[in-house]
Amino acid sequence: MAAALGGSVQGNPDETVTSFAKIEHGKKGQLCFLANMKYEHYLYTSKASIMLVAEDFRPRQALPEGLTLVRTPNPYDALAQLLAYVKNKKKQFRRHRGRCRIAFSASLGSRVWVGDYVTIGAKTRIGAQTRICDNVTIGENVRIGNDCIIYPGAVIFADTVIGDRCILHAGCVIGDDGFGNVRQEDGSWKKIEHLGNVVIGNDVEIGSNATIDKAPMESTIIGNGARIDNLCVVAHNAKIGEHVAMAALCGIAGSTEIGDRCILAGQVGVAGHLKVAPDTTLCAQTGVIGDIRKSGYYFGSPALPHRTFLKAYAKFKQSGLE
Amino acid sequence: MAAALGGSVQGNPDETVTSFAKIEHGKKGQLCFLANMKYEHYLYTSKASIMLVAEDFRPRQALPEGLTLVRTPNPYDALAQLLAYVKNKKKQFRRHRGRCRIAFSASLGSRVWVGDYVTIGAKTRIGAQTRICDNVTIGENVRIGNDCIIYPGAVIFADTVIGDRCILHAGCVIGDDGFGNVRQEDGSWKKIEHLGNVVIGNDVEIGSNATIDKAPMESTIIGNGARIDNLCVVAHNAKIGEHVAMAALCGIAGSTEIGDRCILAGQVGVAGHLKVAPDTTLCAQTGVIGDIRKSGYYFGSPALPHRTFLKAYAKFKQSGLE
Amino acid sequence: MAAALGGSVQGNPDETVTSFAKIEHGKKGQLCFLANMKYEHYLYTSKASIMLVAEDFRPRQALPEGLTLVRTPNPYDALAQLLAYVKNKKKQFRRHRGRCRIAFSASLGSRVWVGDYVTIGAKTRIGAQTRICDNVTIGENVRIGNDCIIYPGAVIFADTVIGDRCILHAGCVIGDDGFGNVRQEDGSWKKIEHLGNVVIGNDVEIGSNATIDKAPMESTIIGNGARIDNLCVVAHNAKIGEHVAMAALCGIAGSTEIGDRCILAGQVGVAGHLKVAPDTTLCAQTGVIGDIRKSGYYFGSPALPHRTFLKAYAKFKQSGLE
Repeated sequence: MAAALGGSVQGNPDETVTSFAKIEHGKKGQLCFLANMKYEHYLYTSKASIMLVAEDFRPRQALPEGLTLVRTPNPYDALAQLLAYVKNKKKQFRRHRGRCRIAFSASLGSRVWVGDYVTIGAKTRIGAQTRICDNVTIGENVRIGNDCIIYPGAVIFADTVIGDRCILHAGCVIGDDGFGNVRQEDGSWKKIEHLGNVVIGNDVEIGSNATIDKAPMESTIIGNGARIDNLCVVAHNAKIGEHVAMAALCGIAGSTEIGDRCILAGQVGVAGHLKVAPDTTLCAQTGVIGDIRKSGYYFGSPALPHRTFLKAYAKFKQSGLE
Repeated sequence: MAAALGGSVQGNPDETVTSFAKIEHGKKGQLCFLANMKYEHYLYTSKASIMLVAEDFRPRQALPEGLTLVRTPNPYDALAQLLAYVKNKKKQFRRHRGRCRIAFSASLGSRVWVGDYVTIGAKTRIGAQTRICDNVTIGENVRIGNDCIIYPGAVIFADTVIGDRCILHAGCVIGDDGFGNVRQEDGSWKKIEHLGNVVIGNDVEIGSNATIDKAPMESTIIGNGARIDNLCVVAHNAKIGEHVAMAALCGIAGSTEIGDRCILAGQVGVAGHLKVAPDTTLCAQTGVIGDIRKSGYYFGSPALPHRTFLKAYAKFKQSGLE
Repeated sequence: MAAALGGSVQGNPDETVTSFAKIEHGKKGQLCFLANMKYEHYLYTSKASIMLVAEDFRPRQALPEGLTLVRTPNPYDALAQLLAYVKNKKKQFRRHRGRCRIAFSASLGSRVWVGDYVTIGAKTRIGAQTRICDNVTIGENVRIGNDCIIYPGAVIFADTVIGDRCILHAGCVIGDDGFGNVRQEDGSWKKIEHLGNVVIGNDVEIGSNATIDKAPMESTIIGNGARIDNLCVVAHNAKIGEHVAMAALCGIAGSTEIGDRCILAGQVGVAGHLKVAPDTTLCAQTGVIGDIRKSGYYFGSPALPHRTFLKAYAKFKQSGLE
């Protein structure tokens, strides 16, 4: 294992473990990891059998007997590799059709697994080894790539395009109408029909119960490698860049572009028709109402450069104490 | 087409198009529109075949050859009409029963379309030409009007009343229990059972994965023409006025009344037992914790009149720069 | 009824009612309650037949004829008991199997009710008198206790443990992957597989479309008696204490611990790896980015002690008026 992780063993090279645990809970036969030095003290009293540590880790006390260290360049990344390895061993790669309605003109690749109470619409194409779980609804003319997983309760509307190796978590809704209305003179609303679609790249994850709306005329786009957490809303015509990470309960309004590799913390809101520069970080609950041209850290509602906001807030707090 | 839209043609009256596009992307055989002068420069280099413009639009440069203008009173509204026309041509008005369980005492109007894996409970009545998509759950004694669409994954609880021409988007939940608990002396909670219902008017849209809870004793009300976006929460006993537009991730707490024609931007929160005056606009992320008696624009958490908030925030920002 | 509620009758002891109403709407044959003196004036003109009042209530005017008072220690609590009594009379305690797929190795207790289009996975155990509504998806090796209700559209992933008398509202997702990714040098993300689970105690309610993610290695925990409202997110490895009440649209980030009996108002966000002391109240839209060690009331983003925040905000508002 150590060789596979690119590390070295300090201790018993034949040690075996059967499960994972957090460092403060490790027992005999378990594997733990130490990445954040805040938790270092747990290591010296740990009963775990194997501990993943950084290559340059220097113990400050004697190690427990029975603890084997595996030194790797990045213990957190090594843990990720191990968890993935265990998960993959459990995967079933085989063709399966549950109680489902698959349109005659739909076309499913090799070893596609389809659960129960699933509907797949006309002309839809699903790539090899993709898994469609129970109670999923897929519309017409949808294209889903290879090696995807669509979890239970997800709803994918007509004309949606999804790349390879994507994961759509339970209950997410992809491609329903955007929130488009024209105000009439009497104060009522007329609906704008949406005839566009959603295009999702490769290696994307969309969280549980998140919603990505289709565009009125063209495409709402989610770039390769993006990670969208639970209960996020991406509105019609928005463009989410590659490798964007968006935590829970974020809202991106219509036609806004979020640049590549941006990080949005929880409950961030970005108003419509804006552009956010690549490599920008928006801290939790930030509200963006104007373009962000300069990448950096932003905080507050409306958003300010991080340092500016914290300085102003320190004075705000002080005024409440006087 | 120009006649139908109430406009006039400047160019080739026999021009035909096959699809729509945004103004910056238009190609031959496509229709675009110009409503926001910010995008005017795209018109002069556009390859589109037809452009919807305002009646009083005066070109500042030569128009591209091959571009036909159609002048209408309101290009955005004209576009909405065209999109609706195309969508309607695709609609299927026919009776259909998929693999569904419809209670014997339920009663469905003419040309109602029911998809697969749908359940419809006892004594429920569904109006003519309403479409119930796959994987929808409808409880007992529900009344749904004519010409409605209920998208996949929606859940409609017993006793709910829905008007005509409503659209309930995927995964929305109508009529589940409100968040009602009584605190006990030991700090625990006793649940308050909810025996009321939800009443939704005509021409209402409820967004994907939004939730509208039923009242403990009477009705939670959504007024005619209201537009509720994805992932909104309307709590028990709230009353949403006519033609209210509520963007994504808003939360309206119990027993609060939102006046007619209010506009709520994204991620707004309104506390319980409050009244918000008609024709009020609440800007994004605003938090309302007291009645709003005077219609106008409000911003901030807690909410302040828009101008007051922005002035105070400008000083707040300045204090962070010093 | 009065005896059952621990109260006394002032008026007609044989009075009967058939439904409940709010105090301002009560008619003959209905029961209302007066708990908040703000509504007292409605009592004197009420046409209701029975009114629940506090034991020490002294009418300031003549009571309407035909109105019987029932005095109880706590009218709101008495109402809750009555609503529950009515609801329970409607419950059906009987074994039922709809059109469902139940794994052969799954084991269901006595009088379990299973609706249509439900899937229940291998080795899953469901306790006596639990009701699984239509369109629910339950994975493998799940344990659900007695007397639970799982509403339509809920999705419960493998290895989830749920106690007795829990209510999972429509569309909630329990046990999907947490939002775990490791940043790579090129800015992309590598997914961290989640092999842990979610453990929910007894007497818990999880709101519609809320999501509780499983942990990477151990358990995300929801304590006994907790009340989580619609559209909340509880992230991987979080620990929600006993009797915590969390209103709609809250987000609790990974590995954070919310102490027993905390109250979180709507749209609150708590960042990751934090501890919030028991018996703390977080006001609406509060954003917590550091440990809260002292129980009390907090407000603002970032969170401040309630009084500090309001004092500072009053000055903030003033600066916007000058």
